[in-house]
Amino acid sequence: MKFFPLSALALAGALAASAVHAAPLGAPKPTPTRSQKTSAAIDRIDPTYWFVGMKNPTVQLLVHGPGLASSTVEQPNYPGVTLDRVEKLTSPNYLLLNLTVRPGAKPGKLKLKFKGAKNFTYDYELRARNSDPNRTQGLTQADFVYMLMPDRFSNGDPKNDVVKGTRVNHVARDSMYARHGGDLKGIENHFGYFKQLGATAIWPTPVVENDMPKASYHGYAVTDCYKIDPRYGTNAEYAQFVKNAHKQGLKVVQDIVLNHWGSYHHLFLDQPAADWFHAFPTFTRSNYNAYPLNDPYGSQLDRKLENDGWFDTTMPDVNQSNPLVATYLIQNFLWWVESTGLDGYRIDTYPYSEPQFLMAWGKAIADEYPKLAMFGEAWEGTEAEQAFFAQNIFPPVNGFKSNLPGVLDFQVCFGIGDALKGDNGDLTKLYRALQGDWMYTDPTRNVPFLDNHDMSRFYSVIGEDFAKYKMGLAWLLTLRGTPQLYYGTEVLMKNFSDPDGKVREDFPGGWAGDKTNYFAARPGQAGEAFDYVAKLANYRKTHPVLSSGKLMQFLPQDGVYTYFRYTDAGECVMVIANNTKDAKQVDSNRFAERTAGFASGQDVVTGAPVPDLKTLAVPARTVMVVELKK
Amino acid sequence: MKFFPLSALALAGALAASAVHAAPLGAPKPTPTRSQKTSAAIDRIDPTYWFVGMKNPTVQLLVHGPGLASSTVEQPNYPGVTLDRVEKLTSPNYLLLNLTVRPGAKPGKLKLKFKGAKNFTYDYELRARNSDPNRTQGLTQADFVYMLMPDRFSNGDPKNDVVKGTRVNHVARDSMYARHGGDLKGIENHFGYFKQLGATAIWPTPVVENDMPKASYHGYAVTDCYKIDPRYGTNAEYAQFVKNAHKQGLKVVQDIVLNHWGSYHHLFLDQPAADWFHAFPTFTRSNYNAYPLNDPYGSQLDRKLENDGWFDTTMPDVNQSNPLVATYLIQNFLWWVESTGLDGYRIDTYPYSEPQFLMAWGKAIADEYPKLAMFGEAWEGTEAEQAFFAQNIFPPVNGFKSNLPGVLDFQVCFGIGDALKGDNGDLTKLYRALQGDWMYTDPTRNVPFLDNHDMSRFYSVIGEDFAKYKMGLAWLLTLRGTPQLYYGTEVLMKNFSDPDGKVREDFPGGWAGDKTNYFAARPGQAGEAFDYVAKLANYRKTHPVLSSGKLMQFLPQDGVYTYFRYTDAGECVMVIANNTKDAKQVDSNRFAERTAGFASGQDVVTGAPVPDLKTLAVPARTVMVVELKK
Repeated sequence: MKFFPLSALALAGALAASAVHAAPLGAPKPTPTRSQKTSAAIDRIDPTYWFVGMKNPTVQLLVHGPGLASSTVEQPNYPGVTLDRVEKLTSPNYLLLNLTVRPGAKPGKLKLKFKGAKNFTYDYELRARNSDPNRTQGLTQADFVYMLMPDRFSNGDPKNDVVKGTRVNHVARDSMYARHGGDLKGIENHFGYFKQLGATAIWPTPVVENDMPKASYHGYAVTDCYKIDPRYGTNAEYAQFVKNAHKQGLKVVQDIVLNHWGSYHHLFLDQPAADWFHAFPTFTRSNYNAYPLNDPYGSQLDRKLENDGWFDTTMPDVNQSNPLVATYLIQNFLWWVESTGLDGYRIDTYPYSEPQFLMAWGKAIADEYPKLAMFGEAWEGTEAEQAFFAQNIFPPVNGFKSNLPGVLDFQVCFGIGDALKGDNGDLTKLYRALQGDWMYTDPTRNVPFLDNHDMSRFYSVIGEDFAKYKMGLAWLLTLRGTPQLYYGTEVLMKNFSDPDGKVREDFPGGWAGDKTNYFAARPGQAGEAFDYVAKLANYRKTHPVLSSGKLMQFLPQDGVYTYFRYTDAGECVMVIANNTKDAKQVDSNRFAERTAGFASGQDVVTGAPVPDLKTLAVPARTVMVVELKK
Repeated sequence: MKFFPLSALALAGALAASAVHAAPLGAPKPTPTRSQKTSAAIDRIDPTYWFVGMKNPTVQLLVHGPGLASSTVEQPNYPGVTLDRVEKLTSPNYLLLNLTVRPGAKPGKLKLKFKGAKNFTYDYELRARNSDPNRTQGLTQADFVYMLMPDRFSNGDPKNDVVKGTRVNHVARDSMYARHGGDLKGIENHFGYFKQLGATAIWPTPVVENDMPKASYHGYAVTDCYKIDPRYGTNAEYAQFVKNAHKQGLKVVQDIVLNHWGSYHHLFLDQPAADWFHAFPTFTRSNYNAYPLNDPYGSQLDRKLENDGWFDTTMPDVNQSNPLVATYLIQNFLWWVESTGLDGYRIDTYPYSEPQFLMAWGKAIADEYPKLAMFGEAWEGTEAEQAFFAQNIFPPVNGFKSNLPGVLDFQVCFGIGDALKGDNGDLTKLYRALQGDWMYTDPTRNVPFLDNHDMSRFYSVIGEDFAKYKMGLAWLLTLRGTPQLYYGTEVLMKNFSDPDGKVREDFPGGWAGDKTNYFAARPGQAGEAFDYVAKLANYRKTHPVLSSGKLMQFLPQDGVYTYFRYTDAGECVMVIANNTKDAKQVDSNRFAERTAGFASGQDVVTGAPVPDLKTLAVPARTVMVVELKK
């Protein structure tokens, strides 16, 4: 998620937050909506349940109840489990219970006995871990990620459009800032569509509760870290959603935010202690700039603003340097994996989190779930700065050494944009985006993409030029990494992020009665676009040369840019781009390192033979994907 | 030196080389001009003399004489010196003598006795090393380098304008491609001028022989590695030039080319062996692109073209992977330091040389002369790529780990250009150019600059806007590193590199009778410019806070960019830029990390007091350099 100071989206956020703006810290105190009332005296424990058999045997329970801090807690009588320490916080309403759950402890109900003005018992559930080895598959380069906004994709269950007890009492499909009613069921109804397109994984923007009064349909203003937003479904339905996706051969990437929560998060409304959030004398924004973090000349102020400043008036910045908060966040994201079997985390606003926390968090998650995919949003302007936030070849800088396997590949996105915008596209940036891979430990874990919910849509960026559209998609689907497509790009959805934010429109056909239904039929160019993506995506899926083959690129020359995907076993796919307005006859002599031994080729999309590899006829504004033949 | 495929300079080069172009390898065979005829049978030995007491006791003599290869050489009778091995090459005209000169060997004449069809003796000189500890001082951040083209700066000795026996028989000041007659004496005549400007070091473009028929006034087409170009002076005069400079408190940087020679180089005209130069079936240019070198996906071809392709038709690419050639180049540049006491090498076209050779060359030179400054030309587009060619924090990539202390700071140059070009200058690149210093081992050894002989002149680039001019100079002279100024920038010389190459015009007043003589008088804005540079340069020279102080920069904000140079001892200089068209009142609260403890300031250039540090009044398009006061 990127903050756009001037965009309509930001404006909407600011308006939504106007009540909060006046007194940003702890001001909004409506009666919290508590969904997990479990006893008279305790209204929630986070994590809401835990597991036996975790590699890290300790767990920290954050227990909330009015006046709870004056209670004491008895050592439980549960084989393998000990209560090591009870901590009080500033607030009278919390206790922190530090437990050890030793290997061999059995699943069951752990009776937590509280004594004080009133005595009561809470049955805390310790669940068995799921032993299915096919859960949490991670992502590989053979995957193709379909990114969507659940509120805007499809409304599978109109009954949950407005949920009683939430802070929004209506849907309004004609507003970009209101909820529209999309849900998990809507996504699930179209698993077949994703498969037809050749996608193998779904990345919805965050699905956890965003119970904000306004404009939190996007999911990045979390109000309950342990609960699926009821407008999307229940926790049980989400777990089933992941299970059903797996059954269909689809993986699920959960979009998560470590840096900030929504200002109606229950832990912000009733703060355990003042040091759970970054506070400033007056409302202070992030500078939205990660460069000071590794600037040898950076000021402490600029670093602090990046890491501690608020992402928005409605999004308090979580103090991850508080070890209790760090533990809270680590446990939360172990919990989701164990509870659902999800395959990967996409981590929002990665550089905004505190560097030392990111290292601890990443290690803890990977220690427990080594197969889990993790890639972060590091929206940076240079190859080096982007690489700084992934596992890389650099020694620690200012004590930071990223352990994030991959990042969203903004450099590739910018490179494809540079190549295709306007009449005189420049291929330099795209070439350099890949060249910069020398700085990564494993650049194949990066996620190339053309656009997302924070950007103008690709088809608009390239002037709705269908030839260019095909070029961008051909690159996306033949590059190294795990490609990501933003919903609707496959049917030519368009619009600019500025000024009206209409890059988050509903998918046509996602709502009953939609005049246009692209799930049912895709007439004209929308269908051509879909088929083009599907053709290449399915080719990628079935041809390991594209998903695990090596890459060799040649310097762009006279508007022609060529790379090859190839294996030592002799497979080879040539991706040759003519980014000029004139057809070209390209002498392939300079590609001999890769074309030697091949006699002809076949266009992967059209099936047309390419009989002459010596002189390649490449039409104007075309990326040809050619499978070479012996 | 950069190759401009479309520029007038390149066109001139191509014309000059037309004879060579048809048959590039070894075609031009006019009678060589031999300047060191020492016996009937031997016409030269490289190195022309050597030294006793070098750390590396071995030296390889390349001996040339017609039919010499059929001779044998006797073991010399010289205490401490042995002839270890005599090697023949493909050519009948060379022998390679491998000597060891042991510690304790005395200076003197080493009699080399050759036997064959004719017997003869050659007295090879072994000189004492110079023991003056003040020679070869290196550069520090307290230095300010004045870069000039000796042919174009000043004609101190009209007698050497045309030298008999060279391939050019005229001067023509009205042509940008002809020689104009400038020389060492002309530079020396103006040592006082440099000092008045505040410069502390002189960097002339290469001064060694460029005896090409055309357009080699620039010096990058070397024809004799051991000889000063006679149009500039003699070897003895050059040694004296360095000595005199040192006496005046000026250092000398020698501009050198490792990658290529001129096509009339004596070793190209009569090649020791075919593998001394890179040859191709047909003339093959460099691709002028270093990115393939560390591209994990780079083709062998693109790497080979960068390293082995010819820089120009008239500039054969030296095969540095031949160990004999590598030794020849290493010895040559040890020789120049020992012979003259020069202070630093500026290394042309650094990335074009072979990576393994660069590592060996740099180590050999630094082992012998640890104080010598070395900075390379790595004209790259990104911070990371530039850092790749200097000592950096990266592990070896493709076996290359640079040992070059510093590089010309193209990123700063681009950054200042981005900030000052047009009406809506962008400060991002300048900020990032410095931020990128995290990748260097020691970025203070980099050399920031505004322009050079291969670029459009700074004053033209910024639209001859004097306010912007002062901004650029203020940044240049307050940044970390050793700043470099291109001759004439201090008196507002202008023009664009394309189309007419008039960025290498004569310095006004450098020739007797020049109508304008900026050495004598600088009326109007030329004088203002000179005084502005002199003021800041002399301030830098006398205020260690600018030359050894730390740097802290703040993120550019609303067109204001601020950095501080400061010491732990409490000195502090604020450099605050308002890069907008409107005057600004800047709240300095965000700079409190550096302004705390200071009450007021003084404008370093105008001397005006800056009474209020809380709100800084910064005029439109201004960089204020403010010394803070307690």
